[in-house]
Parts: sequence; C-alpha cells; structure tokens
Amino acid sequence: MSSFFDPTEYSNRISRAASLARELGIRALLITPGPDLRYLTGYNATGLERLTCLVVPAEGAVNLVVPELEVGTALASPVGALDIGVESWQETDDPYALTARLLGPITEGSKIAVDDRMWAVKAIKLRRALPSAEQIAAGVVLSELRMRKSPAEIEQLLFAGAAIDRVHAQVPQWLAPGRTENEVAKEIANAIGQEHEAVDFVIVAGGPNGANPHHEASDRVLAPGDVVVVDIGGTTAAGYCSDSTRTYALGEPSESFAADYGVLEHAQAEACRAVAPGMTCEEIDSVAREILAASGLAEFFIHRTGHGIGLETHEEPYIVAGNTRRLEPGMAFSVEPGFYRTGDAGARIEDIVICGTDGPIMCNSRPHELRVIG
Amino acid sequence: MSSFFDPTEYSNRISRAASLARELGIRALLITPGPDLRYLTGYNATGLERLTCLVVPAEGAVNLVVPELEVGTALASPVGALDIGVESWQETDDPYALTARLLGPITEGSKIAVDDRMWAVKAIKLRRALPSAEQIAAGVVLSELRMRKSPAEIEQLLFAGAAIDRVHAQVPQWLAPGRTENEVAKEIANAIGQEHEAVDFVIVAGGPNGANPHHEASDRVLAPGDVVVVDIGGTTAAGYCSDSTRTYALGEPSESFAADYGVLEHAQAEACRAVAPGMTCEEIDSVAREILAASGLAEFFIHRTGHGIGLETHEEPYIVAGNTRRLEPGMAFSVEPGFYRTGDAGARIEDIVICGTDGPIMCNSRPHELRVIG
Repeated sequence: MSSFFDPTEYSNRISRAASLARELGIRALLITPGPDLRYLTGYNATGLERLTCLVVPAEGAVNLVVPELEVGTALASPVGALDIGVESWQETDDPYALTARLLGPITEGSKIAVDDRMWAVKAIKLRRALPSAEQIAAGVVLSELRMRKSPAEIEQLLFAGAAIDRVHAQVPQWLAPGRTENEVAKEIANAIGQEHEAVDFVIVAGGPNGANPHHEASDRVLAPGDVVVVDIGGTTAAGYCSDSTRTYALGEPSESFAADYGVLEHAQAEACRAVAPGMTCEEIDSVAREILAASGLAEFFIHRTGHGIGLETHEEPYIVAGNTRRLEPGMAFSVEPGFYRTGDAGARIEDIVICGTDGPIMCNSRPHELRVIG
Repeated sequence: MSSFFDPTEYSNRISRAASLARELGIRALLITPGPDLRYLTGYNATGLERLTCLVVPAEGAVNLVVPELEVGTALASPVGALDIGVESWQETDDPYALTARLLGPITEGSKIAVDDRMWAVKAIKLRRALPSAEQIAAGVVLSELRMRKSPAEIEQLLFAGAAIDRVHAQVPQWLAPGRTENEVAKEIANAIGQEHEAVDFVIVAGGPNGANPHHEASDRVLAPGDVVVVDIGGTTAAGYCSDSTRTYALGEPSESFAADYGVLEHAQAEACRAVAPGMTCEEIDSVAREILAASGLAEFFIHRTGHGIGLETHEEPYIVAGNTRRLEPGMAFSVEPGFYRTGDAGARIEDIVICGTDGPIMCNSRPHELRVIG
C-alpha cells in the first residue's frame, strides 16, 4: 500500500482549490503543515516553529515557502513531481515577508484564507505581513474539497476500516476480569500499531467508566459483569484514519441493559441504512436519536451521532442537529450513537460509513451485537 | 514520577500570567489545548474541533470553557484542584459567544491574546466574537514564563535527559553494516518508548544522509565506513521533552573527517561552557560558529546552534544570530552544532543545557567523542 497517490490527483486537487477560491472571491490560500497540506500536495511535513507555507493564489503560480533545511525533505515528497515553485528561506530571513512578496500587490480588503489548523501565532504574523487583506479561514475551500472523497480515498478508508476490524477481532482475547483497562489498552495499542502506521487513540471504558464517552483508559480493574466500551483508531501509511467502537460484556448483562442495547443496535443500524445522497446530516442524527427517544433513552444519548473522517479523525461533515448540509456521494463519517447511564454503565456502536450513489458503503464489518465474553 | 506538579505551582503560574498580561496592557489570555494549557493548569487536553479554552483575564476570575462531554476529564486533571470556574457547553451551543460573555464588556482596541498554537479557525471565530478587541499572540506572556524553568521543571528536564542517555547507551548494539536505517530506528523507538511516555522523533542518518540535518530514517542499508548521526527524543509522563544527538562511525573514519569531528567536539563543548546568566543567545551561537569557522567549517554549519526545550521540543529561547535575549537562570535549550558535507557525510553533537546561576547545568552526560563501532 503506497503512501502517496498519483501526482495527477494532487495537481487536480490544487487546481480545484484555486478554482473554488476564485469562485468564492478569495485572493489566495495559505496552507501550513497538516492535513490540508498533505491533501493538496502529499507532503506530510511536521509542523514546527519554522514557517512552511503553500501559497495557492486564485490565479497564477503555486509556491511552497520552506526552510532551507527542509528543502530536501519537501522535494522527496510528491511536491518534487508537481508544478510547484520551491522558495526556501535561511535561518535569519523573514519567511512571512517572503510569503507576502510571492502574492504580489494585494487590493485593500482582499480575502486571504489561512489554513484552519495554522498556528495562531503564524496567522497573526501573516496578518501583519499582509495588512491590507482580510484574513479568513481556508476551511470554506479545503473542507469543501476534502469532505467529498475520491475513489482513491474511498479505497484508503476501506483499507483503514479493515485494519481496525482486525484489531477488534482480537479484543475479546484481552478482556478479562482482574485486568486493568490500561493493560488491555496497551495490548490494543500494539495491535493498532501493527495494522496501521500510527496509533491515534484507545478507549477502554469498563463499568461506570463506560458512562463517560470521553474516558480513555485507567488503572480500574475490570470486574465480572462489567460492560466495556472499546473505541479505537489509527492512521494508515497514506494518512487515512480508522475509528470504530464495539461494546463487550464480561458475562451476561442485566435484562434491562440487554434491552437498551437492542434499541441502540437498532438505532445505529437504521442511521447507517438512512445514509444516501440528499439526506441532510441532521436527518441522519435524528434517525438514531428518535429511535433511542422512543424507548426513553434520549436523555442518555448526550453527543452528536457522528463526525466526518479522512485525513483527520474528526473533520467535516458533522452529523449533528442544526447541520442542514445534504449528503453527497463520497462523504465519509462515523455513525456512533450510544447511551450513558452515569455511575452505572454505557454502550456505543460505531462504524465509518461512506455515502454511495444510492446508499451506504460500510467501512467496518465486525458484528454489532453485545459480545459476551466468558 | 508523578505526571503532575503541586496545585500551588499551577496557581502561581496562572497568577504570574495574569500579572504579566496586566503589565503588558493585555485584557485577557485565551489558552487552548497544548503546552500552554498544560503549563498553566496541568490539563493535558487533546486539541480537537470542539472549543476548550482557558480564559485568564488580567483581573478577575479564571474560567475554563469546556465541552460538556469533556467536563469529567477536565475535572480529573489538576484543574479540579484549582480555583478555576468550569463553564461547559452542549453540542449545539456557541462556545465562542460563551467565551466572549465570560470576558464581559471589552473596550475598543483592548488587546486579547490567543494561544500561539491555537488553530487559526478558532482564533478567527474568537475575533468575530470579540470584534472590538485587537487580537495578538499570547507568546509574549506564556513564552516569557515558560522559558524560565522552575526547580520542579529543571528536575523534569534532568529526568528526561537521563532517559534519553539510557537510550543512546544502547544505540551501538543496534548499529551494524547491512542493517537499514529504518530497522535501527525501530529498535531505538522501542527503547525511547520504554524510557518515556511518548516517542517524539528518531533520526538515523547514515553516510550521505547524515549531510541532511532533517533526514529522518530510510531504507538505505548502512555500509562499512558510514558515519551515522543519531538524533532522538521523547516526552516524559510529566510532559517534558528530551533531545540528544550523538554521532557514531561503522569503522575508523578518514583522517580528515576525524579532524573535522575534533573541531566540532571543541565547538560544542565551548558553547556549552559559555552558558551563563547575562550571555546573549546569539553569543552562544557565535561561540560554536566561530570555532567551526576558524577551521574552515563555517559554510558546512547551516543551522542555528539550538532551540529552547521544555513542554515542547522546540520553544523559546532560540540560540540563533540576531537573538539578543540575555540568558537567565532556568533557561533550557539545546547546544547542537554540526557540519554537513552534501553527498558525503555529516556530524552533530547535541546536549540539553540549562543556564544555572553561575554556569551550565548539563542534562546529558553521554561521551561526546565519535563512537567507533566494530
């Protein structure tokens, strides 16, 4: 599995970014290391204090401002195969002035869009170097492009989904009363590392900890009867993220928990099944929420139904009330309803789903039922 | 080794930050997840799309804006033991408006300082929520505090230095002709992981790759006679970074290389020895640079002499020409001159040095000489 796409995919992305900027009346995009830079150029640069910045004007030549020290690394990335000028700077130069020079004269009030993830200290220096411009966030262009996955990206998300499924398949062997969440998390992290390029997060939330959706893992010892929420993810060599949750039980759960879990399973499955072009993000959220509500579980489902995923674990589109965006083919996101009974237990089921031309494409295929161990 | 300092250390830091803000005419500091938030509160939050923001006004109560979902995690951190109000928000609330409300009325032109590492998209939303304020970068306050390490922080940096020294002590056993840089890097990464909480970076640069100071590791097979630059670092449980470089040789080096290396060793030692209160950062840089220049190596030393270190691997103060800041007790930074002969080989020696009251405190103690293996 190669880390990079074909150079043509990157040049097309850059052209589409410039063209959308033009359409939105944006004079230029300034993109620093992070997922946007990787998306546009394949250059997976480390974001440090020295300025690296891709300058994409709405019209005209594209340049990469890069510290002299990092020119070799930049050129070894797909940047070397693309039609991008490389403008290097030395330790005592001002790279912000260099960036401004590359843009040429700026009409008063022109919109200059900076990377959503750019460090504020850099955005502020760019504002000073470009005093006549109005600074906005580049997400209006980059998120628009990134949220519609290409066939090559869909392949990567399926690959990432299969990788995390192989980890979940091993989880039951590590879960047992007497072990701590941290011990289990360590084994899971090793397995994620074997199946991915990087381990992103490992949530092992047993018993009452499962009722905190953002609990990670602790020294709490798993006990017989515990329900354990396992939410895990990693990043593949090509930079695409996996994220999947399954819920396990150390022995048969109570009847009332089993009944609630059945409702959750139904809610999650229906929300996945509802994914199709033209549905809005908030409608997908409602499908899950209403099924839970009908069984009195609404108050225990305290978060949105999902988040987009791609080069970041969390990105557009968010599957949340108030988001009236309509799904289009290629949009990829989690569907992860849950219920959380404070002090008692919680449960969550999460798959990554891609909107296909006439229905959902599922990235995960592990069984959804409560997996009872022992 | 505990992950956290005493709550008093955090409340003192917050008081000093507010007081320095007042002195600089800054109305408030807005601090998002990252090293600044960890420095002020001990809360090592993951920075995601939902806004978490510590609001430190120059005068008045300190509040933490935090997503409802993350309140439990925030209170489980030292935040729970500090005099900080916790203001939570729900999935469909506007946390930027909430932040603005917490600040109260803002006089036109008041300076509001945002975290240096805040995502630009968040800084821009805060600018819109606080339209009458002038937004500046909070580094003028936070870097000033963070660059002067407390006794507890010095202890942490010494602890981190000893950890990476134990890794370097094992490096010779993994270096051998016939192995790839990546194979060696993997063993080193495992060892860093055993000695630290996180692996930050592993540079294994053999032969001509050593001449690229930012080379990481590749599939290049190490050859007899290679000089290998090994620059490695990790982060301890308390969040402090290690960073140390040693140069190894697979067999006796050429006479000319050995002579150059001797000059480098002298330059690095003298620059360390020069560390004392009152010296400027650029003077430390000059000490190393002039010794290399006197032997004709100036043109091969293509980077600054060092960078500050603490909760980040790279932070203030930078040891670079043009930085006239005077060293004070507690300032911690790398001293890492090198020489890089493109296409041939490179060498670098790096220690972390803390400015003591009358001279350097060395965080690393591995021998500096070229370690010849085999």
